[in-house]
Amino acid sequence: MDSYKDTQPHHVVIIGGGFGGLYAAKALGRAPVQVTVIDKRNFHLFQPLLYQVATGGLSPGDIASPLRAVLSRYKNTRVLIAEVIDLKSDERKVILRDGELSYDSLIVATGVSHHYFGHEEWAQRAPGLKTVEDATEIRRRIFLAFEAAERETDPEKRQAWLTFIIVGGGPTGVELAGALAELAHNTLKNDFRSIDPAEAKILLLEGLERVLPPYPPELSAKAEQSLVQLEVTVQTKTLVTDIQDGCITFRRGEGQPEQLRAHTILWAAGMKASALGQILADRTGVALDRAGRVMVEPDLTLAGHPNIFVIGDLANYSHQGDKPLPGVAQVAMQQGKYVADLIQHRLQGKTLAPFHYRDPGSLAVIGRNAAVADLGSLKFGGFLAWLMWVFIHIFYLIEFDNRVLVLFQWAWNYITRKRGARLITGPDPFPLVESR
Amino acid sequence: MDSYKDTQPHHVVIIGGGFGGLYAAKALGRAPVQVTVIDKRNFHLFQPLLYQVATGGLSPGDIASPLRAVLSRYKNTRVLIAEVIDLKSDERKVILRDGELSYDSLIVATGVSHHYFGHEEWAQRAPGLKTVEDATEIRRRIFLAFEAAERETDPEKRQAWLTFIIVGGGPTGVELAGALAELAHNTLKNDFRSIDPAEAKILLLEGLERVLPPYPPELSAKAEQSLVQLEVTVQTKTLVTDIQDGCITFRRGEGQPEQLRAHTILWAAGMKASALGQILADRTGVALDRAGRVMVEPDLTLAGHPNIFVIGDLANYSHQGDKPLPGVAQVAMQQGKYVADLIQHRLQGKTLAPFHYRDPGSLAVIGRNAAVADLGSLKFGGFLAWLMWVFIHIFYLIEFDNRVLVLFQWAWNYITRKRGARLITGPDPFPLVESR
Repeated sequence: MDSYKDTQPHHVVIIGGGFGGLYAAKALGRAPVQVTVIDKRNFHLFQPLLYQVATGGLSPGDIASPLRAVLSRYKNTRVLIAEVIDLKSDERKVILRDGELSYDSLIVATGVSHHYFGHEEWAQRAPGLKTVEDATEIRRRIFLAFEAAERETDPEKRQAWLTFIIVGGGPTGVELAGALAELAHNTLKNDFRSIDPAEAKILLLEGLERVLPPYPPELSAKAEQSLVQLEVTVQTKTLVTDIQDGCITFRRGEGQPEQLRAHTILWAAGMKASALGQILADRTGVALDRAGRVMVEPDLTLAGHPNIFVIGDLANYSHQGDKPLPGVAQVAMQQGKYVADLIQHRLQGKTLAPFHYRDPGSLAVIGRNAAVADLGSLKFGGFLAWLMWVFIHIFYLIEFDNRVLVLFQWAWNYITRKRGARLITGPDPFPLVESR
Repeated sequence: MDSYKDTQPHHVVIIGGGFGGLYAAKALGRAPVQVTVIDKRNFHLFQPLLYQVATGGLSPGDIASPLRAVLSRYKNTRVLIAEVIDLKSDERKVILRDGELSYDSLIVATGVSHHYFGHEEWAQRAPGLKTVEDATEIRRRIFLAFEAAERETDPEKRQAWLTFIIVGGGPTGVELAGALAELAHNTLKNDFRSIDPAEAKILLLEGLERVLPPYPPELSAKAEQSLVQLEVTVQTKTLVTDIQDGCITFRRGEGQPEQLRAHTILWAAGMKASALGQILADRTGVALDRAGRVMVEPDLTLAGHPNIFVIGDLANYSHQGDKPLPGVAQVAMQQGKYVADLIQHRLQGKTLAPFHYRDPGSLAVIGRNAAVADLGSLKFGGFLAWLMWVFIHIFYLIEFDNRVLVLFQWAWNYITRKRGARLITGPDPFPLVESR
């Protein structure tokens, strides 16, 4: 397993094939080092478009690129589909569930997953959207809900099937709410005979006082306005206090708890670091923030461990501005490239200035014609922002064939308002109505 | 549930949204009848391309069309996602797992599923290819096998991971074997570091004396020749006698049983009628053939039940030629149209000549450049047959957007030899190597 080590002087192990890990690997692809990319999955996933899979607009294959295909041209790079379960930093070894691996430099880029604020039992009742399996499960729930509503004759029960709650008003929540509204009002318009899908109630719940909290207030207002136009009910300052099967309880501001019957509850709220954050803390003594993210040095290393780097969503980088850098793809990509650069500098006996993030701006999409853009001095919304969002997102799809395909799908969906990938897959759902 | 019945004089219930059911529904879409299409799934699946999903060339969404979208323009038609569990032919009622439904005419088109010749325990060890879930499970097994081989250091165990057995030399088996060979020799060529995927051993086992038994012998010979060129080992007159996890036992002709270690065994051999065949037999007394298919009258009705029709793979139509009509999409489509026509004739008090199948010929594909075509007097193979196969199959994809997308994907895959949809999804596969 460790045979490269003998022939190559410096072995870089990268854990995680997301944006951070992949950009680091690509930047090291022509360097005089040996690279191993470890991931549990055999594909890179373009998470910003995952909400399109969840709402039937794209297929998982459209937004996934096989890691081996992406990296096959780099002959110094190998891909290992494996799970990392521990680290021996003094021996410079990564422990896999089925083996181990020595490194000279280690780049940890395993990202974050959902967080239910101590209510892990909510996970099954209100799935989050991080993996392909999450997306197909949400897709299953959304389309089964319309099917069950079509079959249900009791008006109250039918309304519970047609009520969709999205918890969390960040970009994922806003995009999911917008896509669901379009689904109900446009895509499914003529598809049912007993229900009018436009009667669907889509509720976006946000704990803070506005949606898209990290964006400037005027963009949050624009986003909310676009959502309201799509007939999404936006409820801010609202905290979820309980989730049961088919029922959610929440409180607005200081008000009394309210209960709402809803069969489809989607989670876009909390975030916690992947398990490797805690392992790093245990083995190296590095500090974690409240979300479990790793506090990194200005050069993205761990304090006292100059050969271990943490990048992307898993890193808390607080050396620039008054807040940690946001958990977005751009940060991860730039950090991946920086670390690759730093490793090469070191091998040549040179130094490199600390990491500095160049913010290209933020974008969030809210449906067919609307998005909001925050490009520093330039802040705008509407169709132009939407078009920009589409092209930027497609541009960053890792492989050319995905780009062409998704652009085609997108144009097609835009023209026809169809969502052709709305498959209900997975276990047998029958009986549809009585069981819930 | 049954409210249409009051306003419309004639209610046609169609069970199954495959080729037969869908073509019947479309042909009835402008007729003065009320139509209900019942299916367990919310999409029509283009099964002839399912092997492309199983080998990572297409995504499930590319070969599936939402039934509601396909039928939404027909205002006399509704879609019911439900499971039929029984029939009361004297009351003209279909019993659902969660309700019931009256009909005036009933069209049963629920097709066939795998058959393991009494060895149902083989199903888990050697999955067949009928559903989207089957295809993603086979895809999972194929790509995990290459991953496990890359990790495995013991040569013998590694070879077991790189051995792929396809049981059954009909069109599905031939197409799967061809696609697997291309995968190993072309697509994955540069993707691994410890193994050469071209070392994969692909074995096609057929019980009869040649592959594609229903085709003319010269085409079977051409197909076998193409497979051998792709380095598939074709073994005819071979019967499987046992399948265990990671091991298959078979016997050639009158020879001794041979054992072969293989982690990926795929089933493309047996076929049995769906459960509704037996229900029809129990409730109407109709005869079934050995595979459980329903013996139909020359007009596709059941004997003594002129308002119940069985079409497509579930029907045994033995009134034309010396064999039953084959279980192919063309037969199902023509039967669907015929029954729609017959129902309309009857409503006008007219009669219609018995069903007659017009055979447009048979095609099977064996990889990038090779296929075999049997167009009656014209029998040929090679690139021309391949091109024809591609265009005919794409032409019969139900929706225009699928056609354009699949054509694009196909062209792309042809040029690049990439298979971008090779995602390993589903349950956590770790540890990859030790566990098997």
